[in-house]
Amino acid sequence: MDLQAIVDRIAEDIAPHRGEGRVADYIPALAKADPNKFGIAIATPDGACHRAGDAEEGFSIQSISKVFTFALALDKVGDALWHRVGREPSGTAFNSIVQLEAERGIPRNPLMNAGAIVVTDHLIDNGDADAAIERLLSVLRDHAEDSSIDIDYEVAMSESATGARNRGLAHFMASFGNLENEVEVVLSAYFRHCALSLSCAQLARAGLFLAFDGKDPVTGERILSSRRCRRINAVMMNCGHYDNSGDFAFRIGLPGKSGVGGGVFVVAPGEGSIAVWSPGLNEAGTSLVGALALERLVEHTCWSVFS
Amino acid sequence: MDLQAIVDRIAEDIAPHRGEGRVADYIPALAKADPNKFGIAIATPDGACHRAGDAEEGFSIQSISKVFTFALALDKVGDALWHRVGREPSGTAFNSIVQLEAERGIPRNPLMNAGAIVVTDHLIDNGDADAAIERLLSVLRDHAEDSSIDIDYEVAMSESATGARNRGLAHFMASFGNLENEVEVVLSAYFRHCALSLSCAQLARAGLFLAFDGKDPVTGERILSSRRCRRINAVMMNCGHYDNSGDFAFRIGLPGKSGVGGGVFVVAPGEGSIAVWSPGLNEAGTSLVGALALERLVEHTCWSVFS
Amino acid sequence: MDLQAIVDRIAEDIAPHRGEGRVADYIPALAKADPNKFGIAIATPDGACHRAGDAEEGFSIQSISKVFTFALALDKVGDALWHRVGREPSGTAFNSIVQLEAERGIPRNPLMNAGAIVVTDHLIDNGDADAAIERLLSVLRDHAEDSSIDIDYEVAMSESATGARNRGLAHFMASFGNLENEVEVVLSAYFRHCALSLSCAQLARAGLFLAFDGKDPVTGERILSSRRCRRINAVMMNCGHYDNSGDFAFRIGLPGKSGVGGGVFVVAPGEGSIAVWSPGLNEAGTSLVGALALERLVEHTCWSVFS
Amino acid sequence: MDLQAIVDRIAEDIAPHRGEGRVADYIPALAKADPNKFGIAIATPDGACHRAGDAEEGFSIQSISKVFTFALALDKVGDALWHRVGREPSGTAFNSIVQLEAERGIPRNPLMNAGAIVVTDHLIDNGDADAAIERLLSVLRDHAEDSSIDIDYEVAMSESATGARNRGLAHFMASFGNLENEVEVVLSAYFRHCALSLSCAQLARAGLFLAFDGKDPVTGERILSSRRCRRINAVMMNCGHYDNSGDFAFRIGLPGKSGVGGGVFVVAPGEGSIAVWSPGLNEAGTSLVGALALERLVEHTCWSVFS
Repeated sequence: MDLQAIVDRIAEDIAPHRGEGRVADYIPALAKADPNKFGIAIATPDGACHRAGDAEEGFSIQSISKVFTFALALDKVGDALWHRVGREPSGTAFNSIVQLEAERGIPRNPLMNAGAIVVTDHLIDNGDADAAIERLLSVLRDHAEDSSIDIDYEVAMSESATGARNRGLAHFMASFGNLENEVEVVLSAYFRHCALSLSCAQLARAGLFLAFDGKDPVTGERILSSRRCRRINAVMMNCGHYDNSGDFAFRIGLPGKSGVGGGVFVVAPGEGSIAVWSPGLNEAGTSLVGALALERLVEHTCWSVFS
Repeated sequence: MDLQAIVDRIAEDIAPHRGEGRVADYIPALAKADPNKFGIAIATPDGACHRAGDAEEGFSIQSISKVFTFALALDKVGDALWHRVGREPSGTAFNSIVQLEAERGIPRNPLMNAGAIVVTDHLIDNGDADAAIERLLSVLRDHAEDSSIDIDYEVAMSESATGARNRGLAHFMASFGNLENEVEVVLSAYFRHCALSLSCAQLARAGLFLAFDGKDPVTGERILSSRRCRRINAVMMNCGHYDNSGDFAFRIGLPGKSGVGGGVFVVAPGEGSIAVWSPGLNEAGTSLVGALALERLVEHTCWSVFS
Repeated sequence: MDLQAIVDRIAEDIAPHRGEGRVADYIPALAKADPNKFGIAIATPDGACHRAGDAEEGFSIQSISKVFTFALALDKVGDALWHRVGREPSGTAFNSIVQLEAERGIPRNPLMNAGAIVVTDHLIDNGDADAAIERLLSVLRDHAEDSSIDIDYEVAMSESATGARNRGLAHFMASFGNLENEVEVVLSAYFRHCALSLSCAQLARAGLFLAFDGKDPVTGERILSSRRCRRINAVMMNCGHYDNSGDFAFRIGLPGKSGVGGGVFVVAPGEGSIAVWSPGLNEAGTSLVGALALERLVEHTCWSVFS
Repeated sequence: MDLQAIVDRIAEDIAPHRGEGRVADYIPALAKADPNKFGIAIATPDGACHRAGDAEEGFSIQSISKVFTFALALDKVGDALWHRVGREPSGTAFNSIVQLEAERGIPRNPLMNAGAIVVTDHLIDNGDADAAIERLLSVLRDHAEDSSIDIDYEVAMSESATGARNRGLAHFMASFGNLENEVEVVLSAYFRHCALSLSCAQLARAGLFLAFDGKDPVTGERILSSRRCRRINAVMMNCGHYDNSGDFAFRIGLPGKSGVGGGVFVVAPGEGSIAVWSPGLNEAGTSLVGALALERLVEHTCWSVFS
């Protein structure tokens, strides 16, 4: 299969749709993204990276970072993680607080805001959010073999300044005893990891191990056990796109995670990992053009896990 | 891979757990099931069926029937189905009515009770529930190559006699204009298809096409388009086990559907289809021993779609 | 206080508002009401009835009937009523089903649809809905000293034909064991009592005992104990106008009950009972002009219980 | 009517129940209250105060303070208050966040936590919480003619230290733009007014104007307009006891407000104002023995507004 031809073809196919969707504007730093941007990158086990469009340009990965914090937390605390967060779809919006009240502060899954805040709490020792972020950065740089990966601190500050909803979620969970660190400590790490800036190429490479049972196929390094890797993919499949996860599975059929920056990260088990980026979002907060591109990809490659 | 050895091994492995879980007792006909029963069958594309335990004994497939009515309705009305039912996980119990109020009578997905009632409504022409059931039976007998498949009418009557909750759901949806046939007509078909009695062997064979992109690999008959088949599998993955779907994906990693009769039907794309049966349920209404057996199966076969 | 002058003045004051609001159209029989109609009647302990406008014209009292069935049920079964229905405001719409799921089929209060269905169930012995309705009619005729009071059977049939939502509520409660009679039996009585047709004059007279501690001040007959009378008034104050009850208490400050036919019945303890009617409803389903009239009444009479 | 004899009789009647109920323990400062305490005081328009039991002992009035902040805010901003808070019963617990999500950060009423936080926000100018508290204290001391009324700062600090739930509510509302001051500024005032310490005698006297149409009958000073006074009483009737308000109206029939410190403040329009205190709470958070005492009071005085 000529993946380079495929990504080129996809970039061409979606060209008429560039600019569609609505750029997230809840923080100024995201609102200024150019809606015409589109990038796609596929990392494969031979170390190649097939790119098209703006695949080298960094963007705010936002909630996609939750996949990496989830993986780190699972590696750090193992199944103890599940005492404080579930693994079921929520049936509600990404920032909903309703379910938290009925279920006494235990978020439904690690990929919605409340759950990711709990996951972040697990990564912080002795109240040291900076150390947790340093560790995350170091891990991502290793995975992506690219030491230039960094946080966009303008975005991070902007997240914090407008973070009332997430503060609401965090204090609410704290009231049920489900945070070990101070709310502002946890959020300072949370806002920073949501503000990570990666290009499609970096993102696809950083997550390649998730397509190969937890082992980086390029370096041969085992990053996660096979079992945990499958579990992360399962949670992405069921919960990766908020209350749009069912539709994503239906249309694309691959485990993945969306971010409101317009990025989508997707895993094709045994084949490769894919990142797409285009800032305009559909109503559910997933990149509109990005999802179109992934539909094309699955048509061309037959990589759906459901066939 | 010696699948016969694997199913034999599984039957042996789970033997100490036989009888665990709680047999559904909301209708007398189910309550009298023997909790010690356990069967497993794997249908493969070569036409073989690997069995162990009580794999030839008929049981009430209950909600597993929703997969077949879903497939029939998709075949009959195509994407128009999605105007009247969603494809997102509900985040609530199988018989919840809460979401229906906020979303004006449109159930979240075709595999929860309310959604399956809408699907059944689609299968009925001119108010003729009998014809719809005849058609379903005929299709299942064809798929399974077994003309003896039938409804357990004692169970069906018992379902109807105790069906107040489902009547509540159906009238409630009718109040939003989301049923075309009379409530009791739709329910008479619904209660009957939930009362279908199949053995593990029959069930695995009947659903084999779902593991092969919609085409029966034994007869070569195309039953559904590849695209629709993938979509059914996607919906099973996200919604097949009520508010336990995330956990099932997490543990087993295959699209599937549970029934409160203790059956679980599972699809391993490109490999085969599996049915297990053991009447004791876990708290979420999935067969406790059945799920254990499927975990073992996935360990032995590496069939998880997430690796 | 010259009540006749007051009602005349009110009729004059609200004249410019006649026709405002939206006539209920969920059943044809209600939709054809003339939006310009307005009537008001005040019954006083001396047996007088002060009227203005269309105070002699019969209208469909709809949910106002729930006050009388509530009183009859309390008289019949006493505090046992509270095992099957609560006395708290619901915080939700009159026909909401959400709360019923969380609270296992026990409606919040006797004045919302679900609660009134349970109350009606209490009034039916041996499945004889006709007898229950006969008894209700007989009681109302006695209270109002007017044997011509009757049900509008065209409205009743129309209610039944379009009663899917109420059927949903009833079957749902039945699934929790909270109905003793068959759903359709209970609903046949419920639809009939909602279709009672009374004029403002008849309605004010029929409910006069509620303003005098349960005793009809004209005939001297004790209809209810003082304690039960106070309790009915308390429930009307908190729950008489669906999710608009707080606003009604705030604006008018008297216990009362609205119906979607545009009637409002109100009790001024120790003073008299009032009925107003005007078909146009506000967003919460209370008569828009009727509520304006009652605001004027309270200004002129200082009858608010809160001063 | 010999009110002194009545309060003495009530104190005697409830003596066998002293110690019943469960003392609030969510903050240590409340948990150490003596469950055997009981006080009652009735303030009358002649300036008298009829007392029994521990009517002179200060206790933490907690949510009862919301009545006074509500009155102050209504006086300060008038009907503009209703743009940011409703006046309907919530149907949910006092600290529920669920309704806030669906209704976009507008709390249901000023007497539940979220609503009282918004009310407090209205009282703060230029971020000066101290000035707002000084003003509240000054007003309460004037009303009660007792300059010794003060805040229990140990309780206030304890509220703040354990205030995660209220922080969750406040940040959540802030995310909808429904707070003008900084969250911690608003909460610092909120926690302080909840920590006000008054005796039954002080409390009954401070709220006497609410029983006399907004005018202090002793000094003749008009504190609120008659209309606003009626409205405050209406909101207390419907919303004064969380999800127990209906039951309170049903049993006692007077507008009132409970606090988790075991105090209950009640208004008998035209008659007087009453405060009771006993720390043990019923399941809904209202003083168990206090409510019994008020039931007796209403029996002896016939002060229910519903008769």
